[in-house]
Amino acid sequence: MARKTGSHSEITGPRIRAEASRLFARHGFAAVSMRQIAAAVGVQAGALYLYTPDKEALLFDLLKTHMDELLAAWAEVPRGTGALTALEAFVRFHIRHNLPRAEAVFLSYMELRNLSESNFAVIEALRRAYETELETILRAGQAEGVLALPDPKLAAMAIIAMLTGVNTWYREGGRLSRETVETIYWDMVRKAVGA
Amino acid sequence: MARKTGSHSEITGPRIRAEASRLFARHGFAAVSMRQIAAAVGVQAGALYLYTPDKEALLFDLLKTHMDELLAAWAEVPRGTGALTALEAFVRFHIRHNLPRAEAVFLSYMELRNLSESNFAVIEALRRAYETELETILRAGQAEGVLALPDPKLAAMAIIAMLTGVNTWYREGGRLSRETVETIYWDMVRKAVGA
Repeated sequence: MARKTGSHSEITGPRIRAEASRLFARHGFAAVSMRQIAAAVGVQAGALYLYTPDKEALLFDLLKTHMDELLAAWAEVPRGTGALTALEAFVRFHIRHNLPRAEAVFLSYMELRNLSESNFAVIEALRRAYETELETILRAGQAEGVLALPDPKLAAMAIIAMLTGVNTWYREGGRLSRETVETIYWDMVRKAVGA
Repeated sequence: MARKTGSHSEITGPRIRAEASRLFARHGFAAVSMRQIAAAVGVQAGALYLYTPDKEALLFDLLKTHMDELLAAWAEVPRGTGALTALEAFVRFHIRHNLPRAEAVFLSYMELRNLSESNFAVIEALRRAYETELETILRAGQAEGVLALPDPKLAAMAIIAMLTGVNTWYREGGRLSRETVETIYWDMVRKAVGA
């Protein structure tokens, strides 16, 4: 016999997150009510409060899930040997991981302002951890003598901003395949850091 | 005698835009009412409708003013001789112009979704005009043989995303001066496009 409580929380969690993400991205966090989210999920508002204490906690859940998934996915990526190989792996990973998550990426930048101070600090720390992954590769490249760049911290932020920017213009089925875009960005990143 | 109508529209236009920009950036377009904007300006809601037909027109006004000012300011920048000098001028200009306009830059990315289709097309055309300014410099650099890059269109978007990213982390009085940040980014951009 299926355990009803277990399956309930497994099914509604992702569905609640998906609907909340869609509504927040479409209308903005402040303009969306818990009642609207519940209606989109197809449950009573009361059922929503079984899952999350309030709307801000739901937003935090979305942003934290996004960062946790990003870090976990990156941890799985084979990076070969040497800083240059790792840097190429990072560039291709970042584009590939974020392109199908445009909504979550958009929310992650836009709705930071609506997090409580302590929740903001958690997300900031996760973002910094991700930036540090790239910064560490860049410093290793300097140590190996294969990269030449003035400031690894700034370079990490510049590269991440550049790569995330693909989300704002890339259209599936457009002039360039995802693979070609990855390769062109890798060419620019590689040169930007002096390799 | 001062012409009251003239001075009225000169004073309230910028004030309405400033308060609307602040409120939209803080709470999101959909969560802010015309009544709230009027209260922040210190006028009756009715007076606001003398200035703008509705809230979407006000948002469009903000986004269009931002792009018009950006393009007008860039048109004034001396770019010296040759593509490389022009590219450096563009990089430094983009950072310098956008840093003190973080709110307007944020709104320009975030609230595109709330423009009507025809207003969105106007803003998109202005953005494309700005991207084309950079793309033209990159193509000139290719023609001069001083730049080597696989795709000037993608490079233009990559560079603009990278430079705009400074807004998300730069803090006045932090570890690096604005001038140093400009120089570090110029170093990365120059190398990224093969110069």
